[in-house]
Amino acid sequence: MINIKENKELNTLNHSCAHLLAHAIKNLYPDALLWVGPVIESGFYYDIDMKDHVLSENDLDNIAKEMKKIAKSDKLIKRIEISKEEALDMFKDNPYKIDLIERMPDDEIISAYRQDNFVDLCRGPHVASTKLLKNFKLLKISGAYYKGDSKNKVLTRIYGVCFNNEEDLLKHLSELEEAKERDHRKLGKDLGIFMYSDLVGRGLPMWLPNGFTVRKALVDYITDKEISLGYMHVMTPSLGNVELYKTSGHWDHYKDDMFPMMQVDDEAYVLRPMNCPHHMMLYKNSLHSYRDLPIRIAEVANDFRYESSGSLCGIERTRAFTQNDSHIFCTTDQIKQEVKGVIDLILDVYKDFDFKNYRFRLSLRDKENKEKYFANDELWEKSERELKEILDSINADYYVALGEAAFYGPKIDVQVKSAIGHDVTLSTVQLDYQLPERFELEYINSNGTKERPVVIHRAILGSLDRFIAFLLEETKGNLPLWLAPTQVCIIPVNSEYHLEYANKINDILKANNIRVTIDDRDEKLGYKMRESQSKKIPYTLILGDKEKDEELVSYRIHGEKETTTLKIDEFVNYINDLIKNKK
Amino acid sequence: MINIKENKELNTLNHSCAHLLAHAIKNLYPDALLWVGPVIESGFYYDIDMKDHVLSENDLDNIAKEMKKIAKSDKLIKRIEISKEEALDMFKDNPYKIDLIERMPDDEIISAYRQDNFVDLCRGPHVASTKLLKNFKLLKISGAYYKGDSKNKVLTRIYGVCFNNEEDLLKHLSELEEAKERDHRKLGKDLGIFMYSDLVGRGLPMWLPNGFTVRKALVDYITDKEISLGYMHVMTPSLGNVELYKTSGHWDHYKDDMFPMMQVDDEAYVLRPMNCPHHMMLYKNSLHSYRDLPIRIAEVANDFRYESSGSLCGIERTRAFTQNDSHIFCTTDQIKQEVKGVIDLILDVYKDFDFKNYRFRLSLRDKENKEKYFANDELWEKSERELKEILDSINADYYVALGEAAFYGPKIDVQVKSAIGHDVTLSTVQLDYQLPERFELEYINSNGTKERPVVIHRAILGSLDRFIAFLLEETKGNLPLWLAPTQVCIIPVNSEYHLEYANKINDILKANNIRVTIDDRDEKLGYKMRESQSKKIPYTLILGDKEKDEELVSYRIHGEKETTTLKIDEFVNYINDLIKNKK
Repeated sequence: MINIKENKELNTLNHSCAHLLAHAIKNLYPDALLWVGPVIESGFYYDIDMKDHVLSENDLDNIAKEMKKIAKSDKLIKRIEISKEEALDMFKDNPYKIDLIERMPDDEIISAYRQDNFVDLCRGPHVASTKLLKNFKLLKISGAYYKGDSKNKVLTRIYGVCFNNEEDLLKHLSELEEAKERDHRKLGKDLGIFMYSDLVGRGLPMWLPNGFTVRKALVDYITDKEISLGYMHVMTPSLGNVELYKTSGHWDHYKDDMFPMMQVDDEAYVLRPMNCPHHMMLYKNSLHSYRDLPIRIAEVANDFRYESSGSLCGIERTRAFTQNDSHIFCTTDQIKQEVKGVIDLILDVYKDFDFKNYRFRLSLRDKENKEKYFANDELWEKSERELKEILDSINADYYVALGEAAFYGPKIDVQVKSAIGHDVTLSTVQLDYQLPERFELEYINSNGTKERPVVIHRAILGSLDRFIAFLLEETKGNLPLWLAPTQVCIIPVNSEYHLEYANKINDILKANNIRVTIDDRDEKLGYKMRESQSKKIPYTLILGDKEKDEELVSYRIHGEKETTTLKIDEFVNYINDLIKNKK
Repeated sequence: MINIKENKELNTLNHSCAHLLAHAIKNLYPDALLWVGPVIESGFYYDIDMKDHVLSENDLDNIAKEMKKIAKSDKLIKRIEISKEEALDMFKDNPYKIDLIERMPDDEIISAYRQDNFVDLCRGPHVASTKLLKNFKLLKISGAYYKGDSKNKVLTRIYGVCFNNEEDLLKHLSELEEAKERDHRKLGKDLGIFMYSDLVGRGLPMWLPNGFTVRKALVDYITDKEISLGYMHVMTPSLGNVELYKTSGHWDHYKDDMFPMMQVDDEAYVLRPMNCPHHMMLYKNSLHSYRDLPIRIAEVANDFRYESSGSLCGIERTRAFTQNDSHIFCTTDQIKQEVKGVIDLILDVYKDFDFKNYRFRLSLRDKENKEKYFANDELWEKSERELKEILDSINADYYVALGEAAFYGPKIDVQVKSAIGHDVTLSTVQLDYQLPERFELEYINSNGTKERPVVIHRAILGSLDRFIAFLLEETKGNLPLWLAPTQVCIIPVNSEYHLEYANKINDILKANNIRVTIDDRDEKLGYKMRESQSKKIPYTLILGDKEKDEELVSYRIHGEKETTTLKIDEFVNYINDLIKNKK
């Protein structure tokens, strides 16, 4: 979706529309006191002290009507410039504006904008006339603390958005509707994926049975794939001694994003924000020869970050999350082969999920600012060249981000464009020359002398939680069959007469590890079929006389109208094939 | 193994033997200063200030020789009783003893025991003569702080054990040897199951690839079983708001065993010691009708307890562990059926693991002390009767532990006798009438009115970490095929000529999800076979000319001498059958 704040033309338009809203409010509620009305990413809002008037969504239509009237009347919007003294006099009835003005320097020339009898402080610029503002929509109403401070009065905040023409407005409103339907927080609740409870804690998701089923399918999927590629899975604890993070350097640079430390006896522990230090210690646990490398350590790991409560968002951004993480320990000569292996795995996984709308981002160091990076020109040049060669060799769609490399090495990220137009970084491969130094990692090379390995950080699905949020939004909750919490819903046409046959089919599907449910409630067939649809169950079986007598199953695919009939074993094979092929 | 401290006869014998040790030390090192020599579970020790003598394991033989000499000389052991003043004079050359005596009341009659020229303070009793002490063994030597305080001097501690006859001593020593061989800490290191690092933190195990493989096989096993029984798996976060534990009551009663709280913004979080409160909130997330019950919520859950560093033991007792946990929410009428279901599951699992040496313990309330328990006579009597009926109905070997019920309800534990004779509580089923009250849980009964469900806590494998420690000790590290980290080791007789065929077999086994490794190093066949044995890999395949030419595999089972030859697909079927049947 378009970022209105960053689009110069729409920014001006929406700023002017905020004035139009304020103008209408003053016409309808003369005693209302205006505070400020800024442009934001999604349009604009205005914060107003409504005095004794309590506004609700229902009032928005009436306010919009008044705005249309002013727009239609084609009032010119004129800039005026006044002294601070004049401004204090002009707004003397509004303590909110007086507070704003008083905080300006005494010699400031203050600008305001006037349309008809309405005037408001503003830096501008604005459009020339109110008639240019007619293609707007008031979106919602909420409360907001004056100056954002919970000790202050709650003002009324009205949100809106404005476009140059009706077509753009309608397009935007339909995109908003779409985004709302795809919102993983709504889908997550409707489909029983996850829940929150303040008593458990903000940002700590609780995965409900359906959500756990999706997670498990994803974990099994990526673990099996990694094991077949020679990754060795481990499990390390979710906390560590603070000394571990001092050694890694995280304590200095990342402390503010971590939960506070726990002091016990003579030690201090802290919940881990990432797994790298633990994996370094695993490597360090035994001696390694060059013949043992590469060593690929992987973990489906629980991590914790103290995100501010304002930035928490469903399971997209949480304080407790699970990473599909790995660290590859290799020689510098093996970097190319190992990064290539990771890129191949990413492509393989994206194919399974049918992700097509993505680009690679190659982050290199800025050679003009070498002091920002780990010092070893030769290593940097070799590894940057190799990363580039890999992307070229597979004809990848990529762009170079100069100066975006980490301190510890260059990296490749994968930027996926989401269904609602967001750019999401899902996967990453990062070279790290620093952690091996800090942890003094070694291997014995073919000459019998000690050398440092390189560490490759890589994530494929990234945070499983965020990945599931992404999948829910991409699919509108219609997860593919292999991930769906319930894959098949069996409905006996008559919940008595066809129940035995339904149970038989249920048993057969269960024995084939298909996640199946049977709806044997004494409800109408149509009602049960609609419910199976609304639960987004991929396959609904309808079993009646014909099916029972001839040992058949009739199924309807979610969202489709036609019914297909197959023999039992044909259906089992059909479903199993789809699941096996990640459909 | 026998608890010597608790066996009256052996206690006296070992106490006397501690004096014998001290006597020998004084003969050999006249300037050594004795502190104390108590009896412990495993025998006795004596703490001695050896002055300038540095003793090692090598000196134990010589000390034992001197002890034998004194024993053989048949010295009578005589009790003497003296005043505090006399005692202070008698031990005036030993500041350790003086310190002991000075802390006794002035009018105390102090007893000491004399044998030949050696006398030591002691309450007694002792055996009559040193000749009764000849069947002893000095076990080890270590350092120990005087009075256990790390600010004090390190004394020399010598451990030993004494029996009435040689047969008992030899039996005990062989049991000790057995326990050492079965020690899961040694096996865990040798087999690459887990590791510790002080930098990560004491009591925080890191599961190495082999250990993770065992864990995963166990988790998959129990999860699949539970899902097929209608349990719904969830995943909840490893921490919670302190308010959650105040609601559950854990904060008042369990705080000292928890990690300290983490204060952030206006909230305080704490690592959870158990999952019950989280599961209560899951239940509370939606409305329930009697028709929805029972609801069986299960989780393979990560928990944290702050165990004192002295009580930590390998993966048997840790600060971070994983529970195979579940909470069943049901009506009081469903208790019997649900507990029966849990007992059936326990029996089923024990059969898979071939556990036979166990008893059930039925913990009931003590009716004489009703104030110790949740108040509802009718519920207690009904549920205690029902638990008993279940155990009777399956002819369970059980005993009643009166007064051992929890405050919140009666319970059934399963006590398993381990290979080294320890009693281990593996599984448990506990009724809880209290948490539903505290969390105000409800369901709508068939009359449309609100009622409290009962909660059944149950664990089958218990802590996965402790369970794996137990399995390692039971099997001496020879895990059954289905759990073995590596199931098959392939050795080509000639690592060049037979490699292609070995790789082919490797691929076939991998495609069948068998965990296989190939030893293609240029080493002697015998060496590789011995290594496969020492790694406790259940099946070793030896592939040479005959196998290659006729598409056969020859295998040797771990610990056996004969080799069996099968066609490839016969071998695959044979192995798959064993795995499927949990062999």
